[in-house]
Amino acid sequence: MTIKVTYSGDYQQLISPEIEAKLNVIHNNMQNKTGLGSDYLGWYDWASRMNETFLQEIQQTADRIRQNSDVLVVIGIGGSYLGSKAVIEALTPHFHTKPEIEVIYAGHHVSGEYLAKLMKYLNDKEVTVNVISKSGTTTEPALAFRFLQKYMEDRYGEEAVSRIIVTTDAEKGSLLSLSKEKGYQRFEVPADIGGRYSVLTAVGLLPIAVAGHSIRDLVKGASTAEKTFKKFDMNSNVAIQYAVIRNHLYNQNYSIEILATFEPKLAYLQEWWKQLFGESEGKEQKGLFPASVSFSTDLHSLGQYIQDGQRILFESFLIIEETATDLSVFTAENNGDELNYLSGLTLNEFNLACYEATSSAHLSGEVPQIGLTIKELNEENIGFLLYFYMVSCAYSAYLLEINPFDQPGVEDYKTNIFKILQKPGFI
Amino acid sequence: MTIKVTYSGDYQQLISPEIEAKLNVIHNNMQNKTGLGSDYLGWYDWASRMNETFLQEIQQTADRIRQNSDVLVVIGIGGSYLGSKAVIEALTPHFHTKPEIEVIYAGHHVSGEYLAKLMKYLNDKEVTVNVISKSGTTTEPALAFRFLQKYMEDRYGEEAVSRIIVTTDAEKGSLLSLSKEKGYQRFEVPADIGGRYSVLTAVGLLPIAVAGHSIRDLVKGASTAEKTFKKFDMNSNVAIQYAVIRNHLYNQNYSIEILATFEPKLAYLQEWWKQLFGESEGKEQKGLFPASVSFSTDLHSLGQYIQDGQRILFESFLIIEETATDLSVFTAENNGDELNYLSGLTLNEFNLACYEATSSAHLSGEVPQIGLTIKELNEENIGFLLYFYMVSCAYSAYLLEINPFDQPGVEDYKTNIFKILQKPGFI
Repeated sequence: MTIKVTYSGDYQQLISPEIEAKLNVIHNNMQNKTGLGSDYLGWYDWASRMNETFLQEIQQTADRIRQNSDVLVVIGIGGSYLGSKAVIEALTPHFHTKPEIEVIYAGHHVSGEYLAKLMKYLNDKEVTVNVISKSGTTTEPALAFRFLQKYMEDRYGEEAVSRIIVTTDAEKGSLLSLSKEKGYQRFEVPADIGGRYSVLTAVGLLPIAVAGHSIRDLVKGASTAEKTFKKFDMNSNVAIQYAVIRNHLYNQNYSIEILATFEPKLAYLQEWWKQLFGESEGKEQKGLFPASVSFSTDLHSLGQYIQDGQRILFESFLIIEETATDLSVFTAENNGDELNYLSGLTLNEFNLACYEATSSAHLSGEVPQIGLTIKELNEENIGFLLYFYMVSCAYSAYLLEINPFDQPGVEDYKTNIFKILQKPGFI
Repeated sequence: MTIKVTYSGDYQQLISPEIEAKLNVIHNNMQNKTGLGSDYLGWYDWASRMNETFLQEIQQTADRIRQNSDVLVVIGIGGSYLGSKAVIEALTPHFHTKPEIEVIYAGHHVSGEYLAKLMKYLNDKEVTVNVISKSGTTTEPALAFRFLQKYMEDRYGEEAVSRIIVTTDAEKGSLLSLSKEKGYQRFEVPADIGGRYSVLTAVGLLPIAVAGHSIRDLVKGASTAEKTFKKFDMNSNVAIQYAVIRNHLYNQNYSIEILATFEPKLAYLQEWWKQLFGESEGKEQKGLFPASVSFSTDLHSLGQYIQDGQRILFESFLIIEETATDLSVFTAENNGDELNYLSGLTLNEFNLACYEATSSAHLSGEVPQIGLTIKELNEENIGFLLYFYMVSCAYSAYLLEINPFDQPGVEDYKTNIFKILQKPGFI
């Protein structure tokens, strides 16, 4: 498994002794966990540190849930839900109407209608709840859990205890004490892994395993990536290459990076990517603004802006070369739609041609382009890809001399809401 | 019905004799259909020109489909699908599990897996197809229709004719000739209304009526808006105000406008807005880049960037004051989650407090803000809102001295794809 990286400019010209030296220091700091924010570098070697017992416990829990539940409600916001949702959506076939078990999210927003209708929807189904919050104090998931905990207790009585699973910090937080008191099964969010880097911990793995995807292959892919990107080499380490190119474009005054795909199932992977890069780099009035488009849909929408609007953006394409299920254009007797010239072409080949057409149109509009290509969508490749983005994001933020692992701006909002709602201690 | 517009700066200071004079010319040109691209101003007085016969024909067709079908497959891309999808999603309750009829989109992207699985999904359901393409030659929907037309003919034989409805130009295009030859029921996309301004024509109205929403109320709201915004007044015409404020911020070197909502059901309305503004303004290397966020979800994601990243963005909030279904926070005996301080608060009140907290946090981060508030989500208010955005978008593009109604950049891509696929005549 690997990722091919292409660039519309000349990558070799971007390699200077200065940037190589700077990246070498960054790389060594990451290896030795000595850089800015290195208390949160737990994800960097997490895949290889993962032990069999842990994976087994997740898998056994998932198997139990799959046996006794129709729905897993995952309560979490930000990094506590985007990773698993990204992986599950990418791997679930379109129109998957009769899944063995449904994974539904809650507490990722505060819609009273959503929560009320969700509880109604659950009434004739067997349910397990997995509440995920590292701090255990984030208001949105805590609110949703207050309602759903009561729902589970009202409905299942004592059995509710075995149908509620908590994923939180091992040492502190009100969710930890609550779950100890109640006797809920617990998984840990490692203290040294922040939300947006947590997809390969229990945060992501439990929902992904419940949805029926191989967490073993996912971790294997990430583990391969970990080994691959340990090697410092400006010419073979594609995580370095992606970071160098986007940093160069940032320094050339491009302000927006658009992650473009041709597969609608990747919409949540794009959302995960936006959180990862936006929250890691968007500090000290720096960083590329991360946006996403789904082609060819958005070629008939934002495509116009990309082609001809302000020249402040570049595109990163994420291309999947092969698809498991496809259709070929057949010859129509009556060529009324004038499409017979496409006879024999598969729809994926059409998409690859679309990519070529888009790339050449946007290049003529002076939009720089990075191409990231993977062979097909499966657990192993996605594990590799997730790790690729995480490590490349850390390089990227360090190149801006920014701590990739904190989020001071989110704390401002959290404090404001406590003040407005008059939370004791915040008035 | 109205929309309240607020601004974090002083709106009065933005009113100069120059801008008022400029807007007055723009406004009169729109009224008299004399400005740049005015051949495409059909939408401007469409709601009031609409006759009862037309509305009845749409409603009767929708009623027939609702009686004999379980699924309506709408084939269209860009403006041919975003409008109806935006309205249907905004009005459909969460977890609406047993709709009388499902509206499913196709041809808005080219995924072989999606189309193959869709046809499998349809097998045990009664189906009607509505193919929508103004030109009738856009490749993506034409491809999807080739497959679905064959599917319908194989399955329904002669009955297929009455289960396929075509929405296209009245004068030209291969879809028109095909539908004449086959004898399909036809609706017209008026020649003087472009895709992204077509939501209130048959393009949007038929799918919306099939989904069970009142197109009469939708059109009524748009018609009220039309009357309201006919009046040129810098202080009461909120469509002018929104255009003036965003134009001012653009001139102050803000590059990105983020449409932020607190209601997840508005996600496709945001996509519709992105197409409307991005495709109307993104030309001649001008225009604000339109992005969107769904709060409070994205406060735990892009929120960090908005708070602390590059100071190139401003926010437009779209706030819904009241929700039909809501929940109140109850008092928990065991206050383990420490949320009892919120007892009695409704979740919508929480969202409004979130808006306040976000607004004040982002203001302290020097992010200018526009607030657009409507009372509740219903057909009439949405009709008003859609018209508000369309008319304000036209003002906005004209302020940049840009034709709001063409999309030359999309044509570049379309021509490229024909060349790459060697379409006869394009080699």
